[in-house]
Amino acid sequence: MVDYNEAFRAAVEAVRAEGRYRVFADIERIRGKFPTALYHGGATPREITVWCSNDYLGMGQHPAVVGAMQEAADRVGAGAGGTRNIAGTTHYHVRLERALADLHGKEAALLFTSGYVSNEATLSTISRILPDCVILSDELNHASMIEGIRAGRSIKRIWRHNDMAHLEEMLAELPIERPKVIAFESVYSMDGDIAPLKEICDLAERYNAFTYLDEVHAVGLYGKRGGGVAERENLSHRIDIIEGTLGKAFGVMGGYITANASIIDAVRSYASGFIFTTALSPVLVAGALASVETLKESNHLREQHQERAAHLKALLAEAGLPVMESVSHIVPIKVGDPVQCKRVTDYLLDEHGIYVQPINYPTVPKGTERLRLTPTPLHGDDLMGRLIEALDDAWNVLKLRRAA
Amino acid sequence: MVDYNEAFRAAVEAVRAEGRYRVFADIERIRGKFPTALYHGGATPREITVWCSNDYLGMGQHPAVVGAMQEAADRVGAGAGGTRNIAGTTHYHVRLERALADLHGKEAALLFTSGYVSNEATLSTISRILPDCVILSDELNHASMIEGIRAGRSIKRIWRHNDMAHLEEMLAELPIERPKVIAFESVYSMDGDIAPLKEICDLAERYNAFTYLDEVHAVGLYGKRGGGVAERENLSHRIDIIEGTLGKAFGVMGGYITANASIIDAVRSYASGFIFTTALSPVLVAGALASVETLKESNHLREQHQERAAHLKALLAEAGLPVMESVSHIVPIKVGDPVQCKRVTDYLLDEHGIYVQPINYPTVPKGTERLRLTPTPLHGDDLMGRLIEALDDAWNVLKLRRAA
Ligand SMILES: Cc1ncc(COP(=O)(O)O)c(C=O)c1O
Ligand SMILES: Cc1ncc(COP(=O)(O)O)c(C=O)c1O
Repeated sequence: MVDYNEAFRAAVEAVRAEGRYRVFADIERIRGKFPTALYHGGATPREITVWCSNDYLGMGQHPAVVGAMQEAADRVGAGAGGTRNIAGTTHYHVRLERALADLHGKEAALLFTSGYVSNEATLSTISRILPDCVILSDELNHASMIEGIRAGRSIKRIWRHNDMAHLEEMLAELPIERPKVIAFESVYSMDGDIAPLKEICDLAERYNAFTYLDEVHAVGLYGKRGGGVAERENLSHRIDIIEGTLGKAFGVMGGYITANASIIDAVRSYASGFIFTTALSPVLVAGALASVETLKESNHLREQHQERAAHLKALLAEAGLPVMESVSHIVPIKVGDPVQCKRVTDYLLDEHGIYVQPINYPTVPKGTERLRLTPTPLHGDDLMGRLIEALDDAWNVLKLRRAA
Repeated sequence: MVDYNEAFRAAVEAVRAEGRYRVFADIERIRGKFPTALYHGGATPREITVWCSNDYLGMGQHPAVVGAMQEAADRVGAGAGGTRNIAGTTHYHVRLERALADLHGKEAALLFTSGYVSNEATLSTISRILPDCVILSDELNHASMIEGIRAGRSIKRIWRHNDMAHLEEMLAELPIERPKVIAFESVYSMDGDIAPLKEICDLAERYNAFTYLDEVHAVGLYGKRGGGVAERENLSHRIDIIEGTLGKAFGVMGGYITANASIIDAVRSYASGFIFTTALSPVLVAGALASVETLKESNHLREQHQERAAHLKALLAEAGLPVMESVSHIVPIKVGDPVQCKRVTDYLLDEHGIYVQPINYPTVPKGTERLRLTPTPLHGDDLMGRLIEALDDAWNVLKLRRAA
């Protein structure tokens, strides 16, 4: 006889034993007071400051976004009521797909229920469409890309993170007539480094490879209109598929790809994860449309965002805190041990009302456990001052290692 | 050299050649006038009646649902701002998970971004957790279950649709110590038939198998509180995992599983499709919570829904239209040819302002192409009368086969 419950209990025990059992912090953001939230972890809820949200610009509370959602809910109701093919395509979907294609300078776009699903569904589909295809994947690619590649059952080769010599070596080894897909991200979200896009495009051209770029942590944030790092570096036209999310800088939820019309039409026609699921709620789509258009129009929030991140990095360095090198808006601080990492975040929450989630293995390699701070334009000097004091206190009390 | 664009164009051509290229109808529902929508397909938008929505009860326009969403957008903003583990768990998520566990009489529940993702992520995860597991899958199971089983890489056996003798044969062949998962649906959404739940539970008990039930087309619609067919038949406690959607009868978007606490904790801790994605927007979660609670409290809409479906079936039979047998709220009408099927739906839309999507292969087997009608409590006698007249006209003009 099989004891099923025992199998599940044992699986959870294994996670606990590795010290990576997760308890979700139950919080409630307070619109108008971002980055403040109510923390429901204690006897009575109390206010905390969130320092680890991926709502990078605070667009989730922007009046244009919230207003568009409320209006859409009022006009058309809560959900789409069907798959895209069966009653679920609304005029909002059509308009948002046009706006996203325009954002990236592409012919067409396709919406998915999340960025995760857009990666998984697209990568598995293109590797089924391109016969005998080899996918060359950066070793730090996101779980959703890895699952999509696995599901597609093409051959996968992993190149060392951002290592162009290694990528070229792999490309050179493959016959020229063999379809090759280079899959990579622009901003890697745990380190804050950025891939050498131009070099990758050059290699793709030289070896006739197809390029798939995840700009999840860059859309809305880089480029004159928020078209991501590819826009900033004037390379969008050299990338075959650009993938993004509506759930981070755009502040809502959902995912998408943009590409030329025949690629979009093929993915639309074949991808199970696109076809057989209820379409994105028009309420989300309306909010995302407002967010994309707002961020297209002005660079103001993007500039503030970069300024805030640079300022925070400077303050941390000044205080002798071990801020890790990052060329983007992401500010990681090294702790280097999972138990200490959890301890410091508990201390910050309990003693200082500061919420930062510990980032442990398997999200990052063992020995590089860290705090990951995401300053937004709404994290003012006062909040930064209080954060530095709190970190300084935590580093003293818990006797953590300072910067070298 | 590989011509990538040509590969994608050819893939789309293949779909066209099979006559199953899909053009999405661009519609805009009108809240307060459900099932009326604006159709954006022509030169100017015009009003049509939707007869194929999976918003089975019209909850997508219910004031309690829409009001809860607007209030949540106002209070906490548009999106969750992070994964469940990193800043994305709000108090709304916690409350909805409790409400869903209660709905199904289970210890715990887990939210996903869609019903598709809940099936895919859960089935792949449990088949990885249970060593050497065999998944016994009904042949008509949904694409999301099939993808989840495939991703889990356990052995799959397919039993003939709802055929208990075939299922028992397969169970009997397997060693008793081998983990076995029986995966099935309650209401099969294209035929409207219902699985023999009690017989499956009996077999599972006899052969020590684990049971996984997709109630996507039944939650909200069957059982005294909307807990699905398992609730109606008093069998919820005998099913290990019950999966559902928030995007059909509940009218919003999202998916979930309910089970005992250790199963939920294991899936929560291992499933990539749960962990590495932005949490459901609190706006959706608030709407779904209102919908679930509303449908728990009263049977009124469920009774009206069944009455409307029965009435429509009677009217179709009376008119000699080939309505297919169905024991649920789903009303399929057989056409039996993909081209005719598309033709009749085009005719209904153009001549009568009636929107029904043609259901062709691969969604249903070739030769069984059909219309699939979904009457709701808001499809009154007048709309039904007009539908019957329109169908009668279409059947005459296009010379389609009547009922035997
Ligand atoms: C690089 C990367 N790609 C894709 C995703 C998935 O996007 P979403 O949260 O919209 O599912 C994430 C994070 O969630 C990510 O970090
Ligand atoms: C049986 C079944 N399971 C799961 C799903 C997926 O649910 P969702 O639309 O919430 O992704 C569907 C349809 O979409 C379905 O018909």
